[in-house]
Amino acid sequence: MIDVQKQTICVPIIKINDNGIANTNDTIVKEDRVNIYLNGSKIISTMCILKDQDFHSIGFLMSEGVIENVDDIKDIEISKDGLNVYINAKINDDNISNLFHEKTLTSGCCVGVSANFEGKIIEKFLSQKVEFHLEQIRHYISEFQKNTDLFSNTGCTHKAMLFCDDKSFLSEDIGRHNAIDKVLGKAQILKIDTSKSLLIVSGRLSMEMVIKCAMHNVPVVISNAATTALGIKSAQNLGITLIGFARNGNMNIYTHGNRIILPQG
Amino acid sequence: MIDVQKQTICVPIIKINDNGIANTNDTIVKEDRVNIYLNGSKIISTMCILKDQDFHSIGFLMSEGVIENVDDIKDIEISKDGLNVYINAKINDDNISNLFHEKTLTSGCCVGVSANFEGKIIEKFLSQKVEFHLEQIRHYISEFQKNTDLFSNTGCTHKAMLFCDDKSFLSEDIGRHNAIDKVLGKAQILKIDTSKSLLIVSGRLSMEMVIKCAMHNVPVVISNAATTALGIKSAQNLGITLIGFARNGNMNIYTHGNRIILPQG
Repeated sequence: MIDVQKQTICVPIIKINDNGIANTNDTIVKEDRVNIYLNGSKIISTMCILKDQDFHSIGFLMSEGVIENVDDIKDIEISKDGLNVYINAKINDDNISNLFHEKTLTSGCCVGVSANFEGKIIEKFLSQKVEFHLEQIRHYISEFQKNTDLFSNTGCTHKAMLFCDDKSFLSEDIGRHNAIDKVLGKAQILKIDTSKSLLIVSGRLSMEMVIKCAMHNVPVVISNAATTALGIKSAQNLGITLIGFARNGNMNIYTHGNRIILPQG
Repeated sequence: MIDVQKQTICVPIIKINDNGIANTNDTIVKEDRVNIYLNGSKIISTMCILKDQDFHSIGFLMSEGVIENVDDIKDIEISKDGLNVYINAKINDDNISNLFHEKTLTSGCCVGVSANFEGKIIEKFLSQKVEFHLEQIRHYISEFQKNTDLFSNTGCTHKAMLFCDDKSFLSEDIGRHNAIDKVLGKAQILKIDTSKSLLIVSGRLSMEMVIKCAMHNVPVVISNAATTALGIKSAQNLGITLIGFARNGNMNIYTHGNRIILPQG
């Protein structure tokens, strides 16, 4: 259950709508700068909502290939104010230097992804034969479409939901990248078998989202929004089923549709 | 006029909608990695649509405070393939080191902004007394709401429009940060007096968007979407009028509403 109070502020606004002009209050999502420390060194700061910082940090570091296996994590500690995450883990130092060797602002503009991507991910291909019936996917999408308290109150958050067997895990953040890292990090820490899972996200699917799925072995990713040319190319190359514009019962299957069981006739 | 052909690709998809299941084609926006070189050194790469790369580069470098005045630009050249932008300009070397001294992934997740922001912008305050009638703003918003060919074809782009007197300038990109940098860079190169202008953007207004406005002396920024707590705080501190959820005739005025002339009674 999200503590909306803690993650939002209330501000006075002038509201102009069909009822006229009114001085009222509005609920606004609150972001903070969280610092991630790995083995005593600050790796990066990220603007995000103060929730699931541990999942977020692990998800991000594994998405970036800095931590290669959840079992390599020795301990995680979040400071009392929630602004610092301290992780001790076994890592390959090259992975950290890769993280920022190429400064690329991607569409959403996560720096670093492309570095480890070009360094290693490009060889990866998710070959698992997991299949989902169209009706099952439609059910997952309808679950995804239920608004959270935080979104209902602010209209300013992205969401990611991971579905695995009969379980589902939800994360949200001001950043679509963060929401995905949070839910994937949570799955890693809970030792969920993501190789059989399906991820649904809000916001567009650009290359870096697809790469996060590959890094966490998630074979199917679905968005309510569009995808880009590199999103499709990377999904094709990485063996990921990519579905876009998933709204109500409708959707576009862009890559590896063999994992979707369509009704006959 | 946007060359939709050049900025999109056509891919085969499985389309599932009320009409059933069909194999068809879909138009997808195409992003490329553009490298920005300043005085012979590569500053950064950015994933974007291959359009207005010169405006984009200048807008970004001025948003980041690396180039402080458009008159400091000696020359700009775009490589034939459109993937490299070469700029020669008078700069303060500290501004470049600031650009990446703090690695922060913001909500959208533009790295670097916060560095120069904390270094200098925080002292800035836009005090211009420019005013806009509500009906004028509603007219600008209705202009903004007209879809571009690229968005109509792909549903995957963000847009930024700058309104100044009777002129308007439009840019779009896969990234909302890029769209803003492109339109502001265009205004700088065309020597538009942005201190009397109004910017309307798609996508949420987080701190870094507000900072871009401050760097380019744009006093009023409007979004069809939400804003964040730091978006409001920075707009308050920087003297920027921030309006969100601007849809049809409705809007929320969050900060410095004194620039908006509301109808009496």
